[in-house]
Amino acid sequence: MQFPGSHILSIDQFERGDVERVFAVADQMLPYAHRERITRVLEGAILGSMFFEPSTRTRISFGSAFNLLGGEVRETTGFESSSITKGESLYDTARVLSGYSDVIAMRHPVSGAVSEFAEASRVPVLNGGDGANEHPSQALLDLYTIRSELVSRGRSLDGLRIAMVGDLRYGRTVHSLIRLLMLFGRSAIRLVSPRELRMPEAIVAAAQVRGMMYWRPRLWSRVSPTWILSTVRESRRSVSRPAPKPICTGVAFAEPECLHRPLRTQYRHHAPVAEGFPGRGAGTGCRPQRQSQPGDFSTERQRCAGEDGAVCTGAGCG
Amino acid sequence: MQFPGSHILSIDQFERGDVERVFAVADQMLPYAHRERITRVLEGAILGSMFFEPSTRTRISFGSAFNLLGGEVRETTGFESSSITKGESLYDTARVLSGYSDVIAMRHPVSGAVSEFAEASRVPVLNGGDGANEHPSQALLDLYTIRSELVSRGRSLDGLRIAMVGDLRYGRTVHSLIRLLMLFGRSAIRLVSPRELRMPEAIVAAAQVRGMMYWRPRLWSRVSPTWILSTVRESRRSVSRPAPKPICTGVAFAEPECLHRPLRTQYRHHAPVAEGFPGRGAGTGCRPQRQSQPGDFSTERQRCAGEDGAVCTGAGCG
Amino acid sequence: MQFPGSHILSIDQFERGDVERVFAVADQMLPYAHRERITRVLEGAILGSMFFEPSTRTRISFGSAFNLLGGEVRETTGFESSSITKGESLYDTARVLSGYSDVIAMRHPVSGAVSEFAEASRVPVLNGGDGANEHPSQALLDLYTIRSELVSRGRSLDGLRIAMVGDLRYGRTVHSLIRLLMLFGRSAIRLVSPRELRMPEAIVAAAQVRGMMYWRPRLWSRVSPTWILSTVRESRRSVSRPAPKPICTGVAFAEPECLHRPLRTQYRHHAPVAEGFPGRGAGTGCRPQRQSQPGDFSTERQRCAGEDGAVCTGAGCG
Repeated sequence: MQFPGSHILSIDQFERGDVERVFAVADQMLPYAHRERITRVLEGAILGSMFFEPSTRTRISFGSAFNLLGGEVRETTGFESSSITKGESLYDTARVLSGYSDVIAMRHPVSGAVSEFAEASRVPVLNGGDGANEHPSQALLDLYTIRSELVSRGRSLDGLRIAMVGDLRYGRTVHSLIRLLMLFGRSAIRLVSPRELRMPEAIVAAAQVRGMMYWRPRLWSRVSPTWILSTVRESRRSVSRPAPKPICTGVAFAEPECLHRPLRTQYRHHAPVAEGFPGRGAGTGCRPQRQSQPGDFSTERQRCAGEDGAVCTGAGCG
Repeated sequence: MQFPGSHILSIDQFERGDVERVFAVADQMLPYAHRERITRVLEGAILGSMFFEPSTRTRISFGSAFNLLGGEVRETTGFESSSITKGESLYDTARVLSGYSDVIAMRHPVSGAVSEFAEASRVPVLNGGDGANEHPSQALLDLYTIRSELVSRGRSLDGLRIAMVGDLRYGRTVHSLIRLLMLFGRSAIRLVSPRELRMPEAIVAAAQVRGMMYWRPRLWSRVSPTWILSTVRESRRSVSRPAPKPICTGVAFAEPECLHRPLRTQYRHHAPVAEGFPGRGAGTGCRPQRQSQPGDFSTERQRCAGEDGAVCTGAGCG
Repeated sequence: MQFPGSHILSIDQFERGDVERVFAVADQMLPYAHRERITRVLEGAILGSMFFEPSTRTRISFGSAFNLLGGEVRETTGFESSSITKGESLYDTARVLSGYSDVIAMRHPVSGAVSEFAEASRVPVLNGGDGANEHPSQALLDLYTIRSELVSRGRSLDGLRIAMVGDLRYGRTVHSLIRLLMLFGRSAIRLVSPRELRMPEAIVAAAQVRGMMYWRPRLWSRVSPTWILSTVRESRRSVSRPAPKPICTGVAFAEPECLHRPLRTQYRHHAPVAEGFPGRGAGTGCRPQRQSQPGDFSTERQRCAGEDGAVCTGAGCG
């Protein structure tokens, strides 16, 4: 991918080398995220933050990262305060608003709406989640978190074993994450969800073509405890708002000490719907260390240590 | 007008020399708007952005301009998140909030409310649109756009021929624009609107006194294609919210090549209600170049080139 | 108190020396608040501003103060635009969001919610008002305003005579202010309110233990005009939102010239519910001088001079 000037709309735009380049830059940004260094490299630049759906984490994550690099942020949240309530088209809004920013980060409740906006925009647009479609920055962050943990154990992203648990149908981050994993060799994936919340077949078929192994175990307990877990909160679907709600994801090592301690917390937060999920019960007071790293893309990582020092990682939801 | 320390509430405050001074400063700001130069001349200054009515364009426009000059922006949008929901008076709010800013940009759904706020404010207040009354910064921007195009053709603002089309009753920007045009010599204006959305008589009478010629053609097709067009979107008036909605305006050259191509886009966006409007039909894919120029006042200009290279200009709505 | 790294949740954390230290720093910040000096001491720092309840004054006050010191602000207002609408716990939100900020200022409609958030936060949390519980920064500001006026008359905070008038039951700022006054010697206080809006007994009992004298006069007119007034607006309690509304406070000298002139304005703004309140009637055009002083804590002070030069002070509401 040619990064300068490009929109980031889908993981489909990425080659493996692109992902590795993003991760290398993210590594370089760590000292700034940790407040060990200060930079004003983005001085004079403006991020247009347009979140047409409730979001705190991804919105604040993009904004803080931009601020830490010296740029300014102009924000629009919800439909209420925006000109879209006046009946303007997304195209029209994009034409004008993109004239005030150097880059736009956008979330929209409708699949494909961010791409539609990007077509009209004069500046690069970053997809911060569009309906049930994709959430590429969150998936990159999840994989970056997984990679960091694997590297610290002498392993790599090749041959990754991961279980995705929960609402895999509307979970836009797992849709992006599975696309991302296809770029790495010999991945194996377990998709654990109720039948009505299964991963869309088109995505599964693409994964097969790329050589990814997958299973659909009915019970969570059949997942080996050495796998990575990616849990997805079930979306709420009310009558008053029938559109699929945004969902959350988290990643963690499914190692025994984690399964029985910090993951209970993880479980309560993300509420996977699969049966037999281990760690059911009250939280154990897992307290993550301060580890957030805003860089050149959305960074929402957190790290938590179990009572016996075992390390788990959990990325925030989008 | 004595600019330092003054509120900008109405075009009535301006003499012709004041307008020309604003335009001269806007010209000087272009390199900053185009990111060719960086300045921090407003370092340490705070813009209080108070938009008590949905707005994205004008709000982001003021904020981005202030950021580009090195200042910071503290924002309040809608009634929901403001202390006005607690029953405080506009006077009381103005007294306190103006203590935190160096200048305030404000929009309010009620005509005259921005002036009421300004009376209590300790710092200058810029009217970003008050009900159906005025929108001076948008009118200045529209005229600045027109001037730039005229200058590039060897013409000037004197002897301007302009047609205002659409909802001229509640269109606050055309109310400000017509006041602005009175300052220039030998203007001629055509007011094209349904009877119930006519320009208020008081404004028309003032224009006559200042020597402006005007007509009320029933059909759009009688407007000469060498005129400037200023189109106004019809305001939506629903039962649940009977107050006149904010409306939009756009300006464009009514030259033949524009009328038949890019203006179709213009038409779809602004939906003038006059009969016989030319260019009816699907858009032609007019794609404006990046040309927004935040400066010392709200800048929402865009420029678009037709397929045959003809140039039209359209300013964003407020 | 050990300031670095501490949350500021309640006045109970403060010793008298801590209060005096805050006031000394506030004095040093005045030149920056008055735009006589510029600093970027907070360059690279981010304030997370989280106001889960309508607020303009306190929110903008914290944000402007942070901006004036060179820091950036990332804001979340209301429940609508936040992930709390997605059903996430306050704990979970705090874990992630505190990773993006260096300090958090927070308001929440539920008593104790800010403390709950602080427990999970990785960075210091400043209580900007939690339900009917406390509003420590506003109380510090009120006392700072009182102190400044007393010092200018050769008096001190010891032996302070103050009357609190209005809704003392849900008035979180007076709850914090009375706790603050306990730290100073020989204070005397008059609590003037309808029976159903009386100051909670636990607070009154604590004040007695600390040697504070108090009375509950039925009529306002029995308060000596040499006292300080602290007025509290009655909270609105509607059926659709039964939770106690946030309330406002103001402080002023109850000296004769004030009682009869500027305080009429004060009265109209804060509408104390006690009978016999003097100064009833139309405002007298009291126009405060520009005197807001954002510093290292929320500063919402204003000063107004009566027609005969008498000085009153009124702090903004929270």
